[in-house]
Order: sequence, then structure tokens, then C-alpha cells
Amino acid sequence: MKLEVRFTPGELVPAELANQTAVVIDALRATSTIVEALANGARAVFPQGSIDEAVRLAQNLGRENVLLCGERRGLPIEGFDLGNSPLEVTPERVATKVLVMTTTNGTATLLTAGAARRTLVASFLNLGAVAEALAAGSDPVTIVCAGREGRFALEDAVCAGALVLRVQELRGEALVTNDAAVAAMALARDHAASPVQLLRETAAGRSLIEAGFEADVEYCAAIDRHRVVPELRDRQITL
Amino acid sequence: MKLEVRFTPGELVPAELANQTAVVIDALRATSTIVEALANGARAVFPQGSIDEAVRLAQNLGRENVLLCGERRGLPIEGFDLGNSPLEVTPERVATKVLVMTTTNGTATLLTAGAARRTLVASFLNLGAVAEALAAGSDPVTIVCAGREGRFALEDAVCAGALVLRVQELRGEALVTNDAAVAAMALARDHAASPVQLLRETAAGRSLIEAGFEADVEYCAAIDRHRVVPELRDRQITL
Repeated sequence: MKLEVRFTPGELVPAELANQTAVVIDALRATSTIVEALANGARAVFPQGSIDEAVRLAQNLGRENVLLCGERRGLPIEGFDLGNSPLEVTPERVATKVLVMTTTNGTATLLTAGAARRTLVASFLNLGAVAEALAAGSDPVTIVCAGREGRFALEDAVCAGALVLRVQELRGEALVTNDAAVAAMALARDHAASPVQLLRETAAGRSLIEAGFEADVEYCAAIDRHRVVPELRDRQITL
Repeated sequence: MKLEVRFTPGELVPAELANQTAVVIDALRATSTIVEALANGARAVFPQGSIDEAVRLAQNLGRENVLLCGERRGLPIEGFDLGNSPLEVTPERVATKVLVMTTTNGTATLLTAGAARRTLVASFLNLGAVAEALAAGSDPVTIVCAGREGRFALEDAVCAGALVLRVQELRGEALVTNDAAVAAMALARDHAASPVQLLRETAAGRSLIEAGFEADVEYCAAIDRHRVVPELRDRQITL
């Protein structure tokens, strides 16, 4: 089974994904928030590239059923209902709702990775469920880290590596990987014991803690909290 | 002291380098070949983006003193004097000569990193000498991995990490790093014992071995073979 990792969206060639399953990871925090929202009963999440596009789509979908959520520079967007926090998307707030979401790194990466035959959404929160879905399939897999403003983010790399290790374990065979997957597995082995500590020390983690989101950082490190596999189809993510 | 790593040239913003020292690494094989050529008495190496530009520059410089060298898809270029092999640039061949060089990843990265206040050239072969030059300076440092066709290459990441570890040791203080530097140091610690084995197992290493360049791969893993610090100035690299 072929499984590659890209540490940044810039390393992705969308046309190469045509016959592949892509997995998008933005552990702090977009894909964690998407997983949490869908696990808590949201009907769908629509990733959008810009604030304008998000607002327009929310109007078209009928504003009463829609929650606008996202962030710029880590902070909630003016006029939006929610930020980009897994702790905000409680069942009380999101059940039966549609979320329209725009974030700095995650949503753009999701839209690019949408070129794949299947596009799944992963985070530490649903690592095991995604690993099982990948191991059960036969498509080549490309795991795409959203990174941070186009650059390498350690939490996404470690999450990707943890996912590769799980898939390898489930398949019971060595995978055909690339250099980035080899590096990601090594980094995941280093940090398997305490992802919380890792997340606290990454650039994104430190910046979130400074901005008052320490609880988010801790929450995003909770491995296997949910057994869901969100999938992007027709520009919306559902279970 | 601030020291960051970029795993791919796509993560570089040239304007951000204006007050920095940049270090370019393409361990397999461009920067190893440049280090070896200059250590063996070549007067200068001119990195060029394209084959046409290289040929034109060689003609302008006076063809008799110039060696055209480089590769495309790992193989020597038709009509060129040399490939991209550190074993080819012997003192007999290169002493007092000027090399005009174009390679798939390394030379383009050098030209981009040329936007820095200083631009140094590193490989395993001259790791210690570059570490000393960086530790003695006060500029913020950005280490740029050439990678492989725009993507992460493990040998460059490990070489970058080994360089960061050396600088940290020489400075006797923790550096102000980014996520990629933290990851690079972890990867370097994993492979410190046997860089040869690492280089043989990376995608670039395997591909070179398949193409018959096994001796090159082994040569490029020789840490601290030369005490030279090549520097790019006015589009040419000299000692």
C-alpha cells in the first residue's frame, strides 16, 4: 500500500490526487473543530476560502440554519457566530446545524485536497477511525498537513506520522512511503508519550496559549476521542 | 540567536532574508559537489537556473577556463563537461577553473536564497566549518533545504538538523528556533550514528544508487571532510 505525506500544501500537485485518497490534517485547530462539530451532531461543514465567500454561502443556504465560524490570525471573525475552537462546537450549539467555516490554513488546504477521489478529515481526535478507513481501502493515500501560513507545523507532522504508524499496524505490512512519511513516523515515535506536551511547545500551540486558548490546545491532543471519519464531497464535509 | 529551517524552497519568502544569513543545503548532491569543487581548487562556481543560461554564461566567461556541470533527472547533461558528482570534481579537473552549474533543485534554491545578506553553502562535507561561521555571527539564520522537486527530502532535513545542533553546541545556549528546526534536530539525533545508512535509504539516495551513483551517496555522507565555507556573492560562489 502506497502512503505519502506532504508537510505543506505547497508540496501538493492536485492533479496527482485524482486516483487517491487524501487526508487533511490541521490539528491546531481546523480539522479538530470539524471532527468535534460533526461528532456533536452538526449536519455538514462547508469549508470556504475567504470571509466574503463564507458570508455569501451562509446567506444562500438560509442564515437561520447556518453557523458562520472560523478565524483569522487565530481570533474569531467579526460578525461570525463561532471561532475555530473545538470547545465552542458543543452539541447544544451545533446539532442539526450547518457550519460554514473559513480559517487561515485548514480550509484552503481542504479545498485543494478536494481534487482527490476521496478526501478525509483527520486530527488526533479521530486518528483511529481514519486509520481504519485508510487501512480498509486500496487507493494510494496522500496525507496533507495544512501547516502554518504555508510552512511546516510540527503538530500536523506528528499527527500525520501517528496516522501512518496506525495504518501500518492495521495492515501488518511495511507501507510504500516517501521521505516525509518516514520523517513523520520518527517524529510521532518521539512524541507518542505526550502529544499534549508537544502541542503546547509548537509555534501554533504557543501562539494559541498566548491568545488565551490553552484549553483548546489540550483538547486537540485527545487521541481517539471520536470514532468518526468526516469526508469532503461536493464541497461539504459530512460523516 | 534566531535560527530557522525551511524544509522546501517554497516555504521561503526572499524579502524576509534581507537582514539574514541564509544557508543552502542540497546534500545529494549539488551543495556537496560545490563544497568539494571549491575545496579542490576551483576558483568559483556560478549557479544557473537553466541549461541555456549556463551555456550562455560559459560562452561569455570564455569557454577555455570554464567547466559546464550539472544534471537533469540525476543524469549528466549532454554537451556538459561534468555531471553533478563530488567524485568528478577532482583537483586535476577543477583547480583554477570556473564551474558553471545547473541542477534540478540545488542551483535554483541557491539563486532564491541569494536574496539574503549572506548566503552560505553547506553539506555534510563542511558541516563544522559552516557551524562555526554561523555561531560567530549575530545575524538571524535561515537554513534552506533544497528538497526534491519542491518537496521534503530527508537527507537535507537531517543535514540541517545536524547543523543546528552544532551551532547550538558552539553557542552554548538554546537557539530561538521554529518548528522545522525542532523537527530537524530530532531527525538528526535519530541518524547521527550513521548518516551513510540514512542517505542510502532516502528517496534521492535510492534513486542515485539505482542510477549507478552509489559511491557518490557514500561520499556525500562524510561529515567534516573539508573546512571550507563557500559563500554566494554577485551570483558566484567562492571561498
